[in-house]
Amino acid sequence: MKEMALNSKYLARKPRGFPDKREPTLHAEAAMIDRVTSVYRNWGFEALDTGAFEFADALGKFLPDDDRPNAGVFSVQDDDEQWLSLRYDLTAPLARFAAENWQTLPKPFRRYASGPVWRNEKPGPGRFREFLQCDADTVGAAGPHADAEMIAMAADAMRAAGASEGGFAIRVNTRRLLDAVLESVGANSDAVRLSVLRALDKLDRLGVSGVSDLLGAGRLDDSGDFTPGAGLEPNAVAAVLAFAQAGRSTRDMTIEAIGQAIGASDAAKAGLDELMQISRGLVALQVPEADVVIDPTIVRGLEYYTGPVFEAELLKQTLDASGAPVRIGSVGGGGRYDDLIARFTGERIPATGFSVGISRLTTALSLLGELKPLSGPVVVLNLDRGNPAIALDAATELRRAGIRAEAYMGQSGMRPQMKYADRRGAPAVVMIGEDELAKGSVTVKDLKVGAREAASIESNEEYRDLRPGQFEVPRSEMVVRIREIVEADQ
Amino acid sequence: MKEMALNSKYLARKPRGFPDKREPTLHAEAAMIDRVTSVYRNWGFEALDTGAFEFADALGKFLPDDDRPNAGVFSVQDDDEQWLSLRYDLTAPLARFAAENWQTLPKPFRRYASGPVWRNEKPGPGRFREFLQCDADTVGAAGPHADAEMIAMAADAMRAAGASEGGFAIRVNTRRLLDAVLESVGANSDAVRLSVLRALDKLDRLGVSGVSDLLGAGRLDDSGDFTPGAGLEPNAVAAVLAFAQAGRSTRDMTIEAIGQAIGASDAAKAGLDELMQISRGLVALQVPEADVVIDPTIVRGLEYYTGPVFEAELLKQTLDASGAPVRIGSVGGGGRYDDLIARFTGERIPATGFSVGISRLTTALSLLGELKPLSGPVVVLNLDRGNPAIALDAATELRRAGIRAEAYMGQSGMRPQMKYADRRGAPAVVMIGEDELAKGSVTVKDLKVGAREAASIESNEEYRDLRPGQFEVPRSEMVVRIREIVEADQ
Repeated sequence: MKEMALNSKYLARKPRGFPDKREPTLHAEAAMIDRVTSVYRNWGFEALDTGAFEFADALGKFLPDDDRPNAGVFSVQDDDEQWLSLRYDLTAPLARFAAENWQTLPKPFRRYASGPVWRNEKPGPGRFREFLQCDADTVGAAGPHADAEMIAMAADAMRAAGASEGGFAIRVNTRRLLDAVLESVGANSDAVRLSVLRALDKLDRLGVSGVSDLLGAGRLDDSGDFTPGAGLEPNAVAAVLAFAQAGRSTRDMTIEAIGQAIGASDAAKAGLDELMQISRGLVALQVPEADVVIDPTIVRGLEYYTGPVFEAELLKQTLDASGAPVRIGSVGGGGRYDDLIARFTGERIPATGFSVGISRLTTALSLLGELKPLSGPVVVLNLDRGNPAIALDAATELRRAGIRAEAYMGQSGMRPQMKYADRRGAPAVVMIGEDELAKGSVTVKDLKVGAREAASIESNEEYRDLRPGQFEVPRSEMVVRIREIVEADQ
Repeated sequence: MKEMALNSKYLARKPRGFPDKREPTLHAEAAMIDRVTSVYRNWGFEALDTGAFEFADALGKFLPDDDRPNAGVFSVQDDDEQWLSLRYDLTAPLARFAAENWQTLPKPFRRYASGPVWRNEKPGPGRFREFLQCDADTVGAAGPHADAEMIAMAADAMRAAGASEGGFAIRVNTRRLLDAVLESVGANSDAVRLSVLRALDKLDRLGVSGVSDLLGAGRLDDSGDFTPGAGLEPNAVAAVLAFAQAGRSTRDMTIEAIGQAIGASDAAKAGLDELMQISRGLVALQVPEADVVIDPTIVRGLEYYTGPVFEAELLKQTLDASGAPVRIGSVGGGGRYDDLIARFTGERIPATGFSVGISRLTTALSLLGELKPLSGPVVVLNLDRGNPAIALDAATELRRAGIRAEAYMGQSGMRPQMKYADRRGAPAVVMIGEDELAKGSVTVKDLKVGAREAASIESNEEYRDLRPGQFEVPRSEMVVRIREIVEADQ
């Protein structure tokens, strides 16, 4: 330890955007990943993990720059001067893998993956530079039934994750229809196209009049800020709004309404046909109308989508720290990206995929009370500090009975040991002092019952007399009594 | 997709040392992490994850440089010019976390973690730049019973991981005894100390005479290479060898033999006392002698250890690609590091921990046949390409019955679909053609039985007549018959 003189102090601090996570969060995230990947696996997708780094040029960069001005990736230069980048999503590495191994893969190649991705962005509240995604993709299947499967599986994943019936929706659209609309209103420049798509995306937040302003001359919001509009003429604004408002109570009715709103261009027909085939697939896959809706306002930011796009949304509200209701919104999404792999292969390999934002979904479902926390361990106090073996032995007996249990490892007195048990969320402590050793007994304290009973006790004297939640049993009954307490705590 | 003209080809290749992992590997690794963390959790340790990046100065660098000349970390410069590094193990970030949050943590703080770590080293066969570790640590407990717990839990983890009784050993030593030996032979310079420790570490590979040479003037190996020795005098060499060979059939006998070999300096007494207390703890924790042995040749490379050190070793041999037996050796290790957190706090916070190399352990146990592979999905073929709904519907029925199943998503003919099912390791395929649709039946092919029966078939004609493993059943019996096949496959 020569380098580490005790007086040389480094600052114990962590970089922003890389959160430390404690047990409740990790337990919930692990449970969520397990639930979602179980669905992917059950649908026959196979696991693939591609490692954190890719060559920077292989990764490409398809993040929606405009929405995230600081968007970027973490890159390092390798010994041979080539640049490596940490993956910013799980799709770009899949494209590289599929292109590299196409000859030997089962085709179509259907894979799932879960793990961290990294974005070199400005961190902020709820915006991290490292977060978990959980994806499924089908590579090498061009048909809309592959999209229908992806969408139906997304609904299955949301249910498995704990979103109850009516608590979520998968919203489906296709880029082909958006292209048809843009074409029909003569939106030819990239800037106008982008403005129209952004305006569409805001229908649920700003309503018809707000979106109408954004499609036309621009919008002045309540704070006095002015957002320039797409500059469409009034009849074009009306056409886009008719398309945007084509949502009906069933998928097939919505498709029909879109058809009426959008006319009969080739692009429109191709888009409608795509949605109709997806709709048929969803029926075969027995997906309820409430789980999956056709929604013409769904845009999705990523550049690489070429056909159907979809978004998973939680519909329930939660309350923020100040008690105000907060809509949770999108927790995942996906779509078809038929050209991404051609970056490598030079020939088109069609693909479609879905990605769940695990951290976001977990936070939302935790707030909604849908996730059960993990119980803390039973703590065996270490009362005879000269002989820690007494506590080690009792903890071993509890663990062998399948009970999460530990012997207190510190060297403190009774009060810090009880405080420790409290901080660990222990359901019970076990005490074996001289008395108990002599009698062959143990003293058990049920901490949850104890806390409840203690609430009605008024004086320290009374507390010491009553010892709420505390009882002595023969050592041979320890496991049984502790198990009762642990099971009541779950 | 403007940026992605189909003729612009990027090279689909991945940087070395970051392996792509397919389902069998991932399934085995996930099962292994689950088993090991279940043990940690059952022993009352709590989950903590600290994110991939730390400030470079907070991470420090305690890798054993001399063994790994290219040792290094991956670092990037943040927007504010501060250097961030990817964690190279799970201990250094824990030290930062414990120091940063010490006031509010339960004390002792006992945590487990699993996840990837990154080392910027020269990759090679079996040497990766990204690999998985799974650690447990107790921070703030000075007593040897905390080491005993860590060691006993390591044994429990090895058993849970699938290492059978007699198939592994946790080897325990203490730096205090090594210091006592170095002191007793007058090894005062860092170079001599390092040479002696390295020689000790090689006893099982080189035997007594090889180590004797390395402790003395040096060793000429079979290939003619000369390794310079520590330069000890013959009586000092004999003293070190006596210490190194003190292993006996029980832990307490070994401690006694070490005592006789090493004399009665203060350092020696402190080391022996530490091992005796650990030994008593192991008895209380009911750890069999075969699971944990005291081994005076255990050194451990990491700089930061201050007391007990231990190593988990698989004892069985496997065969390499050429059929030669290979000893697996160390799959994990740990020890006490009482000064690491003081880098931040300026005051000593004692700590002890254990780390499993998940990738290595998984590879070893897979080779030993201790891990069961995951079954592939049942594949419902898509025979009427105009109506993929038929296959979607049947796959839905199978999944709802809890069977891993998929509808074929491609647009190919019968033969590629069968090839696909084969590559996916499918236990069975389901075929629903015009005949079956008309009759309300399905044709099932049991691929494992089919392959066995086909092996004895001599001609294509006979094959077509017999259709091995293939049978037709009413649609209402599909789930039951498929379930029989899937269960037989497991």
